[in-house]
Amino acid sequence: MQSLPIGIFDSGVGGLTVLRALRERLPREEVIYLGDTARVPYGTKSRATVERYAVEDAAFLVNKGIKLLLVACNTASALARERLRREFAVPLLSVIGPGARAAARATRRGRVGVIATEATIQSGAYPAGIREACAPREVEIFARACPLFVPLVEEGETDSEVARLVAAQYLAPLRAAEVDTLLLGCTHYPLLKGVIGKEMGGGVSLVDSAAATAAEAEALLEARGWLNAQAGRGGARFYVSDAAPRFHRIAERILGEPLGHLEAVEVWGHDRLQAG
Amino acid sequence: MQSLPIGIFDSGVGGLTVLRALRERLPREEVIYLGDTARVPYGTKSRATVERYAVEDAAFLVNKGIKLLLVACNTASALARERLRREFAVPLLSVIGPGARAAARATRRGRVGVIATEATIQSGAYPAGIREACAPREVEIFARACPLFVPLVEEGETDSEVARLVAAQYLAPLRAAEVDTLLLGCTHYPLLKGVIGKEMGGGVSLVDSAAATAAEAEALLEARGWLNAQAGRGGARFYVSDAAPRFHRIAERILGEPLGHLEAVEVWGHDRLQAG
Repeated sequence: MQSLPIGIFDSGVGGLTVLRALRERLPREEVIYLGDTARVPYGTKSRATVERYAVEDAAFLVNKGIKLLLVACNTASALARERLRREFAVPLLSVIGPGARAAARATRRGRVGVIATEATIQSGAYPAGIREACAPREVEIFARACPLFVPLVEEGETDSEVARLVAAQYLAPLRAAEVDTLLLGCTHYPLLKGVIGKEMGGGVSLVDSAAATAAEAEALLEARGWLNAQAGRGGARFYVSDAAPRFHRIAERILGEPLGHLEAVEVWGHDRLQAG
Repeated sequence: MQSLPIGIFDSGVGGLTVLRALRERLPREEVIYLGDTARVPYGTKSRATVERYAVEDAAFLVNKGIKLLLVACNTASALARERLRREFAVPLLSVIGPGARAAARATRRGRVGVIATEATIQSGAYPAGIREACAPREVEIFARACPLFVPLVEEGETDSEVARLVAAQYLAPLRAAEVDTLLLGCTHYPLLKGVIGKEMGGGVSLVDSAAATAAEAEALLEARGWLNAQAGRGGARFYVSDAAPRFHRIAERILGEPLGHLEAVEVWGHDRLQAG
């Protein structure tokens, strides 16, 4: 078990922020990353479609033999984590729980903002998770979908005038609500941290799920005695469902290291292979 | 043949601008529209993936029994029209030819700008089409990908400060090149016509493919004697691959009429049904 890889999937490149945090915290682990770049984005699509895609992504990774499934995509986590738990026996960690708990720890005055994709916000998963993590303490939660943030990041517009203007527009109601903590509920958003932080002001804590998720992954593996004890650094393999070179370009920028093994694969129909 | 419907597909809602032009020009025709909303957008994906999706979309429509296949999506037209012509016997019209010919007719000084998705621009389909339509007259063509325009339209940001800023950024080199005509090479872009027109200035002709494509569809059907001669107005049926209510919302805004029949369907695997 110890030597098996951890499987991570995301709708595209955003989940690489989680992968990076995981490799910083657990450098000895072998990792398999799947980006469903042929069907990105998930955040504007319906629950039924996101569930179907998440099951196919998970089945692809499970069929490779993994000891832990990490759902890095916030939208897939919010909409499909219960379905994945029912369909797969492998231990599963989504970014929702760790992110919500990190926000609960960070808030001082109990005023928490949540920004995410339209689908994640509509699911209500983060507010529910934050209330649960804060209980019995009461919290006020202000949620806001920021649909243009993902395309901005995908286009590399993370520090431009356009990014600043879009951030000002989206974040105005959260500033007005005087939140003390802002949860970045989408894996793309940490790449806009500079712009978001400037807009919100220095007094607001920005929380992202990546580090918290890596910490919980470590705790889970440690409790089961499944941590990889190998001497060297673990390898990382990357799979994408679309061969577009844009993944390579953005991925190396996010990871800060060369990609190594990168392969285009077919993800669709993997639930059926799994069942058969 | 006359009573069979015309089939139109697009990656999402953008192709409805073509549908609207078609229904204005040929109100008696029955129309079937397919929006592949579960996999939108196409414009950031690779040729192999766009070809696969286009074949599946086309197979879905062909299996319904159509007399003409209209590829409304510029990206699918640019990357997959040759493949579709090889695989399907039904007459096919893509937006590339009509759009290129309309731009060739519009230009006065032979300086033509083309804006489109990344995939369409990289294909070089529009510059090749415009040169062919202009020959033997020489033209200078300036092409520019505008990847944020589609998400802006999808989010209804067609007349905002953000839209203006993004347009100013993308269009600056085309203004500098002093184009006299600008081809809107993506079905979403006509919805940004106000902002684009203001940025380019009154002396520049904005050309979109919708009206030109509808006119060529009429000519093609007339030449074959396939125009629908029924007395009343033809019906329109809509299919989407994702059930998200956003299609309904945006579609009625684009069409300016209630949608009527709208159904969520599975598109994937339709090439196999076709072959089997």
